[in-house]
Amino acid sequence: MAAPSALDQLVDSLKRLPGIGVKSAQRIAMHLLQHDRVGAQVLARSLEGAVANVRHCARCHTFTEAEVCSTCLDPQRDRRQLCVVETPADQAAIERSGGFQGLYFVLMGRLSPLDGIGVRDIGLAQLFERATDGEVEEVIVATGFTAEGEATAQAIAQTLKARGINVTRLARGVPVGSELEYVDLGTIAHALVDRR
Amino acid sequence: MAAPSALDQLVDSLKRLPGIGVKSAQRIAMHLLQHDRVGAQVLARSLEGAVANVRHCARCHTFTEAEVCSTCLDPQRDRRQLCVVETPADQAAIERSGGFQGLYFVLMGRLSPLDGIGVRDIGLAQLFERATDGEVEEVIVATGFTAEGEATAQAIAQTLKARGINVTRLARGVPVGSELEYVDLGTIAHALVDRR
Repeated sequence: MAAPSALDQLVDSLKRLPGIGVKSAQRIAMHLLQHDRVGAQVLARSLEGAVANVRHCARCHTFTEAEVCSTCLDPQRDRRQLCVVETPADQAAIERSGGFQGLYFVLMGRLSPLDGIGVRDIGLAQLFERATDGEVEEVIVATGFTAEGEATAQAIAQTLKARGINVTRLARGVPVGSELEYVDLGTIAHALVDRR
Repeated sequence: MAAPSALDQLVDSLKRLPGIGVKSAQRIAMHLLQHDRVGAQVLARSLEGAVANVRHCARCHTFTEAEVCSTCLDPQRDRRQLCVVETPADQAAIERSGGFQGLYFVLMGRLSPLDGIGVRDIGLAQLFERATDGEVEEVIVATGFTAEGEATAQAIAQTLKARGINVTRLARGVPVGSELEYVDLGTIAHALVDRR
């Protein structure tokens, strides 16, 4: 069967998305053409709109449509604390916790040498510049507690400490609401070491 | 955190795709904006192109960019056999098997009353017209062997037989290459009934 080339092209471009294989791409293309052509057009316009308008905040590096994002512009926030996160989603999680009033720096990634993501790719140079603006007194490293997140935290801490900046890391320990019996051993070991 | 609205819109349109939840939509949007803006533009153009150019073949109802698809126009194909499949992917699977030289009718769906998909939504009226063109001698129903596929096959067979058309169904039985020990009981029971 010779599929129409416009359909082939659509499947190919969908396949390029992360987490979408050839079967999902075919299913999505079929669905859009058969049941939701309006949805396909809306998606096309959203893609064009996002590519044209979304850029990085000049201060914290997160996605924004302005020169500086609304969080960085907020006069209520404490300029002495800078929390370093991997993604805007991580930033949103910390905001929801309500436990932080300072500013953020969003790496938009993490060190991952196996994927070819090095120090230059995650805006570390920008972070160093940001952290040495004279107002920041403490950098709280809130990268993930995965191997890559820890490596990123290590790299950040080393460089910032060498420049005399106070660097802290989110506490490792037993999650709220968990029964010890079901907590993994590495977490319990860390919670014992970091007991207070 | 107030996310930029162009990014929100992109996540919303991605969420509308089948099989894409809010987490996947966020991951895809992040990936496109951070690492593959060219891919986002290519996808936008493919969507526009497919919506503008892909339509249904006037004879077999599959997706095509012409009035009639290349399979239906092929003079080498046997016009006396019409194979009814659910999707272009099913048609492609039968083509790859090399066991069929006739023409196809693609339902682009199957009966699924629970999802509100009835006889009118899957082009059955068009199929009845197509099957009574005077050339078709046998309609081979190759819908899936799922509950919906079987119901669809039943509906097709009833109506076409009432009009005196010869209707057959793909054989049910033990898949090639399988050990009986691991074949499910329903399949074995059917293979016993349909033994030859």
